[in-house]
Formats: sequence, C-alpha cells, structure tokens
Amino acid sequence: MFEVAEIGRKLSKKQFRLIAEQLHTRLLEAQFKLRDSSHPVIIIVSGVEGSGKGEVVNRLNEWLDSRGIETNAFWDETDEQAMRPAYWRFWRSLPTRGNIGIMFGSWYTRPIVNHVYNKIDEAEFERQLVKIREFETMLAEDGAIIIKLWFHMSRQAVVEKLSQEAELRKTAPQTEKYIQQYDQFLPVCEQALRSTEQSRLPWHIIEATDRNYRDACCGEIILETLETHLEAAANAKGDSRQAKSHKLELPHQPTILDRVDLDLTLTKGKYLTELAQAQSKLNKLAWQAREQRKSIVAVFEGWDAAGKGSAIRRVTQAVDARLFKVISTAAPTDEEQAHHYLWRFWRHIPLAGYMTIYDRSWYGRVLVERVENFARHDEWQRAYGEINHFEEHLVEHGIIICKFWIHISPEEQLRRFQERQEIPWKQYKITDEDWRNREKWDHYKDAINDMVAHTSTQHAPWSLISGDDKKHARVEIINTLCQSIATKLKQES
Amino acid sequence: MFEVAEIGRKLSKKQFRLIAEQLHTRLLEAQFKLRDSSHPVIIIVSGVEGSGKGEVVNRLNEWLDSRGIETNAFWDETDEQAMRPAYWRFWRSLPTRGNIGIMFGSWYTRPIVNHVYNKIDEAEFERQLVKIREFETMLAEDGAIIIKLWFHMSRQAVVEKLSQEAELRKTAPQTEKYIQQYDQFLPVCEQALRSTEQSRLPWHIIEATDRNYRDACCGEIILETLETHLEAAANAKGDSRQAKSHKLELPHQPTILDRVDLDLTLTKGKYLTELAQAQSKLNKLAWQAREQRKSIVAVFEGWDAAGKGSAIRRVTQAVDARLFKVISTAAPTDEEQAHHYLWRFWRHIPLAGYMTIYDRSWYGRVLVERVENFARHDEWQRAYGEINHFEEHLVEHGIIICKFWIHISPEEQLRRFQERQEIPWKQYKITDEDWRNREKWDHYKDAINDMVAHTSTQHAPWSLISGDDKKHARVEIINTLCQSIATKLKQES
Repeated sequence: MFEVAEIGRKLSKKQFRLIAEQLHTRLLEAQFKLRDSSHPVIIIVSGVEGSGKGEVVNRLNEWLDSRGIETNAFWDETDEQAMRPAYWRFWRSLPTRGNIGIMFGSWYTRPIVNHVYNKIDEAEFERQLVKIREFETMLAEDGAIIIKLWFHMSRQAVVEKLSQEAELRKTAPQTEKYIQQYDQFLPVCEQALRSTEQSRLPWHIIEATDRNYRDACCGEIILETLETHLEAAANAKGDSRQAKSHKLELPHQPTILDRVDLDLTLTKGKYLTELAQAQSKLNKLAWQAREQRKSIVAVFEGWDAAGKGSAIRRVTQAVDARLFKVISTAAPTDEEQAHHYLWRFWRHIPLAGYMTIYDRSWYGRVLVERVENFARHDEWQRAYGEINHFEEHLVEHGIIICKFWIHISPEEQLRRFQERQEIPWKQYKITDEDWRNREKWDHYKDAINDMVAHTSTQHAPWSLISGDDKKHARVEIINTLCQSIATKLKQES
Repeated sequence: MFEVAEIGRKLSKKQFRLIAEQLHTRLLEAQFKLRDSSHPVIIIVSGVEGSGKGEVVNRLNEWLDSRGIETNAFWDETDEQAMRPAYWRFWRSLPTRGNIGIMFGSWYTRPIVNHVYNKIDEAEFERQLVKIREFETMLAEDGAIIIKLWFHMSRQAVVEKLSQEAELRKTAPQTEKYIQQYDQFLPVCEQALRSTEQSRLPWHIIEATDRNYRDACCGEIILETLETHLEAAANAKGDSRQAKSHKLELPHQPTILDRVDLDLTLTKGKYLTELAQAQSKLNKLAWQAREQRKSIVAVFEGWDAAGKGSAIRRVTQAVDARLFKVISTAAPTDEEQAHHYLWRFWRHIPLAGYMTIYDRSWYGRVLVERVENFARHDEWQRAYGEINHFEEHLVEHGIIICKFWIHISPEEQLRRFQERQEIPWKQYKITDEDWRNREKWDHYKDAINDMVAHTSTQHAPWSLISGDDKKHARVEIINTLCQSIATKLKQES
C-alpha cells in the first residue's frame, strides 16, 4: 500500500511555483463557491511522524481564505474531554456548512497509537475502526466532503530527514521514539487505512519526501475533490454556467512500475540450475501444503506479451497435476454476467490443500475494465474495497495468496509483438486488440499504480516482477511463490 | 426492538383471503417485470425457532412463479463446503439478475448460533457482523434487492405453539433445545439485527404468532420493496407508463402503544407516599452516580399535553440542583442548523457524574420531522442507525440512558387541551400547532411504533409510560429511572 509513496516523486522549485500559483487561485475560487453550499469540508491531515504535517497545514492556511477555515489540532485530551465520550471533542470541532475544518491529528490517532502500544487488542482496534467508518459515513450522508490525506515517507527518508533536523536542533522530543517504532506503526496504519477506505471516502496516500511534491499533490487532491463536488451540485441544479473546469495536472511523475529494475537477467546456465532448484522446492512445498490442507491462490497479471503463460507453465511443470488447476480469465459468460463480477472467481476457489492459478483475475475490474470504460467510475472505484474483502475471506480461511504483476518495457513489448507477427506459429497470439492496448500504456500505468496503492496489503501483497528477461522472471516468480508458501506453512506449524 | 412484534397483530380468514388474492396477482406482476431488469432479488427468511419460516417459504413459492425463484436452505455444512471459505456456499446460491433467491437460513445463522453457544466471543461476533454488512452492501451496490425478514414470536407464544404441535407429534428434534435457549438467543439476535441494519438494507420484524398476519405482512413487504424498485427504475428511464401503484394496505393493526394500559391510576394518598419514597431514592442514587462518575441521560418524549414538563419537575425536585441540567429541545438555531442534526445533542453531553434531562430530543428526527416532512424519507430512515450509534457511544462511555415515551389517549389529550384553553394561566401552553398535530395522531402512532422497533435496544430501551393519570406516570417514571441507575451502578461496583 505505502510502497506507491516511496518512488521518488518530486517537483523542482520552478515547477512548484507554477503549480502553487494556480492552486492558490483555484482553491480560493472553490472555497468561495462552497460558502453558499450545504457542504462542510473536513480535511484530515495524517501520516508518518516526520512527514511535515504541520508544514502542510500551514501551506493550506496560506492558500485558503482564513475566514472560512479552522484548524483543529488534537493533542492529549483535556480533563474536560476525558470526562465525556471519546467523540465529543471531534463533534465540537466539526466545521459548519460552507466552511473548512482541517483536522491535524483526528479520530484515527488514538486507536492507532493505542494499538501500537498494545493498550487495545486487535479486536478492539477493529471495533474502533468500524466506529470511524460509521462516523464518517454519517457525516458524508449529511453532505460533508471528507478529504483523507496520508503523508508517507520511507523509513530511510524519515531517518535522513530527522538526522538533518537534529543537527539544526529542531527535533521534537517524542520523534525519536516514534521513529524507532516506524516498523511497528506501519502495519497498524495500513490496517486503519484499508479498513476505513470507502469508495466515497477514499484515502489519498501522498509521498512526502519532497516538500514541493507533497504540498502540490495535497493541494491538487483537495482542489479536485472540491471542484468535483461543485460540478455535481451545479449539474444537479441544472446550472450549466459552472463550466467543467480543466483538471489541474501535476508534472509527470514516476509510478510504482518505475521502481522495477528491468535490467535483471539470468544467463542460460544459471537459469537452468536455479529453475531446477526452485521447481524442486515448489514441488515439495505443494505436497506439504496439501498435507496441511492449505490452499494456494496464485494470480498472474501483466502486460500483453509479458510472459504470463510461459511463467505459469514453469510453475505447473513443478507441481503434481492432481494438485493444481489453471483458470484462464476470458470475457465473462452469460451466466457470469448475470452475477456480481466476483461471482465467477468465487466459483473456482480451490478445495483445502489445492492450488489455483489465475491467468488474469478479478483485477481486470480495476485494469482493463477501468481503462476501457467497461466499468463505470464508481464501479471500479469501489472494487478496491470489494477485492480486499474478498481476499480477506480467503486469507482468513488459511488460503495463501500470491499476486504477480509481470512488468516489461514498452520497447520489449514491441520486440515481442513483432516477433509474434513474424513467426508463423506465434501469430495466433497477437491481435489488433494487443496493439490498441499498447496505445493506452500510460493509462494502464496509472491504473496499476492505483491498484498497488489500494490492494497491496500485508496479507496479500503484490510482487512486481522484472520481466524483460523471461528467464529471470520465471525463477523470481517460483522463488517468491515458494517463499510465501514456506512462510505461511511455518507460521502455522 | 422485538416488543413491536408482541402486540397481537392478526387477520381473520376472510381478511387474509382478500389480501392473499391481491398479493398473488401483484407479486406475479412485479416478478414478471423484474425479469428483464438487472436486479437479483434476495429474500432472507429468518427469525425465532417455531415461527413457521418453512410455512412462509412454502407460501412464497405458492404466490410467486416457480420458474424465476430458487429456495436455498442452509443446513449443516457439507465437507465440500467446509473445505472452502465460509461464504463460498452463499456465493454459490446467489440468484442471477432478474431472479429471486429465497434464503432459508443464511449468513446470519452461523454467527448467531456460534455466539449463543460461546464458540465465538463478542469481538469475533461483531467482526462477523461487519463482514455481513460488507457483503450485503457489495451486493446492493451491484443492484441486488435484499429483503431481510425476521419472524418473531414471544416466548410464551412459542411455548404454546410447540406444545400444541408436540401433541400432534410434529416437533422437530432440536426445537426443544432452542426454546430453552430462547432467552439466550434474543439479545444476540437483537445485536445481529441492529448491527446489520442499514437504511438501504433495513430489517423487517414481523409478528409471526398469527399465521395469516405473518404471511400477509411478509407478502406485503416484499411487494412494496419490489414495486418501489420498479418505479424508481421506470422513473430513471423517464418511463411514465409505469403508473405509481397504489400501496397495498393490510387491515388496521394495533401498534406498540396499544399495549400500554391506560387505566393505571394512583390515589392521591398513595401518590404522595410513593412519590416521596421514589424521590428520596433518586436523590441518593444521583449522588452515588456522581461519586462513581456515572452520567445519566434521561430523554422525555410524549404526546402534546402528555405531562412531560410536570414529570420532569418531579425528577428535578428530587435531585440536587448542582447535579442536573434540563435541555429543552426547540427549533434548531442557525448554528445548529449548519451542522449534522445530532451535533446539537452532542454539545450538551454531561460531564462524568452529572445528569442531563432532555425535554424532547434527537428523536424529533424520526417523529415530528418525519410526520411533518421536515426530513426527507432517506434522512429519517437512516436516523435510526445514527441514533443507535450515538447512544452506543454514550453507553460505552458508561453513561446511563433512560428513554420515556409518555402515552395518553386522544380523549385525555382533548380534555387537557380544552382545560388549557379555559384556564387563563394555562392558555400560553396551547397553540394552533397542537391542534394540527392532533389531526396526525395515526401518523404519529406509526412513527412511534417504528421508533421503538428500531431504537429500543438492550443498552437503551424505551419505557412506555401510561400517562392518562399523571400521578401514576410521575411515580412510574422516577421508579424506572431509579431502577436503571441502580442496576448500572451495581453492575459496575
């Protein structure tokens, strides 16, 4: 989830200045229009310690008109507050309709901190997250626009930043304690975000290492949310004067796929040895899983011609034919279409102890169906949560989930497409559709980045596989698979 | 919650025959129109053991066309099912778009049974209810029409029915075990219903003692839900041919208020003694609560001229002036209007150890705002859940909640109105609005019945007070208040 905010997004001073100017003007405009509306705006500023949340709050106060904005910082409870139900102070701080409340710290802080410090157990933590969901849903149904921002930095980035600041003697006293517990906080925060993510109330994870990118991205998200609401309100009133504003775009930024090192290769000799080793390990693990009645679900996604099929063959070669089943996801049948889109995948859930390999999967909903407009925006948007819930059901039943995205460069894809066209017995593999998909490369990159942001979870993480060299990819896939299975079997035994 | 299904609703044979004929025709019609739609229909048939769920299922199969309907009974899991995640079998049973699936037993059964038999603890039970909510929301967002029916009978009614059936040797083997645990099941079921109630996915609690009423009511709910959806779909398409069908009304039935015995009285002498005793007890308990830092929230609702004001005065006479605060709920101020409707009530939540008395309250949302159309249907409909969550927040903080509805007969109200008009120093108390409200007596009765059905919970039950005799009412209120406080203080010490 947070890996999408560790990819080095940044803006130069000049880029930032240009964007900031536009943001300032357009945010003020949006704020002004909102005043007469029935929408209160709640901006939740949260994230890892050291990500500069205070600076963000200051920036927002600079960009917005202070007359309609109130910043609420939630520190330790006062006696007044402790003597009332926990949510009392949040209710007291809610903005009125037409106004903006910035929540620096919020209803998330205490549950997360208490869970990390073991003051509340897993069940109580989950219960408090449900309460948050109920609270936010209630406000949203009453018209509130809730913008949830999470500022993330990698552990290393925080350490670097803090050591710089320590030199300047600016470190806040509890910061060091927090940084020590960075690794403890991360999974708890992920759970909080995942569990409170709703299609109407999404979390925005913002890479905070570069101050310019951080502030611009945050401003852009707020602006887009406000403008979307204003447009919807104007449309509902049949007021077409509110012209659709052009989307403010930040300068091009890398995606999670740019973190994949496509130069990894294996020599033929090394490949054969390592493949044989990995396959033999997988064979044993598959039998062990069978004995322990653990099912394995392996999902293969990737660019056209990324080598999904041949990678799957290397997996199935290794596993006893009685133990696995490969499901190729093509266009849905009539019967499948007459059900919820997840229905077709539930059908094939393996019996305890078996392995199911999905050649493409439920992720089609947020990839091809999104890019090709087969699914409406609200449909693919809420699919992230639905998919997470689906995978939670599997994991709770003890199923081991491995998800692979095989990444290749557009150049390598072109080479393979051309090869397919030239070699007679490969021609059936290339269609006009493949060429069309290729034109939408950048749209897919965004969709993949969002998919990883929303569905790469502790219990079912994505593995992004470097695929320009097929030999490398196959070995890495089988090894990753082995590792996931081994870890899970070990945990349980 | 279930008390609204213990009020003796029934239909004569003749009444039933008339209704059944209409239901049969119109259900078939609705079913036929649904076939071409994208809505699958899921009917959940659940309720207390012995309420005749099997008979209901048979009746539905009689009224509906069997070609578009599938009944799924969920008994013990097969091996096939146990080897897959728990929801696999529910997914396998979902109806396709345009068809109807009747779920006899459902995803509710196992969590409830397991919790009653202590196989899962409170936290795990709550977690499984959250899963249910997610599942149903997902289906509903995909277009499913989910109709959740709960058939209720009082313990006594079940016992009578079963002993009759036992004579005919028809009792199923596990029924006796269940009846023994009726009292254990009830609170668990209430929690399940409350926690999975959503405004778009409401529970319908049906009194099942009389077979005729049970089946007709169930048919009427299904018909209304289907017709509402069909109309909404036709409107969305701009298709006005689908004329708004007239609502099928069951013959007049009693409401929960008809269970209140209005003949209760106290003689002047007895009143004075008992009032003094009760007040002295309340005085002590209020101080004890203060010592133990327990707050008390007392809500007073009732008909105009029911005697709320004078009852509150008898309470406040008893309690030290430093310990309480009376909040009169009038029309909201500008500032209050600019917030969520619950905001004004959160404001006044007492500090730990104090008592707050609300003269009218947040229940205005589902009473006057509903009847007078001040709130839209979806707004007051979702208020039930919001209010329950609000009160849960209070109870979790240790606050003791008592909710009183003071009931009087329309004749007694008239007498009091006339008295107010005649006595000069009481004239300020009567307005044209009171007379207008009086005309809506039956609408209010329905609203009150629904309010009790949705918000009379284990942790914050409603007390319906017999108010035709003010003396009786006052003593009963103070005694009820004392009992609630005493029980809660005892539990904690």
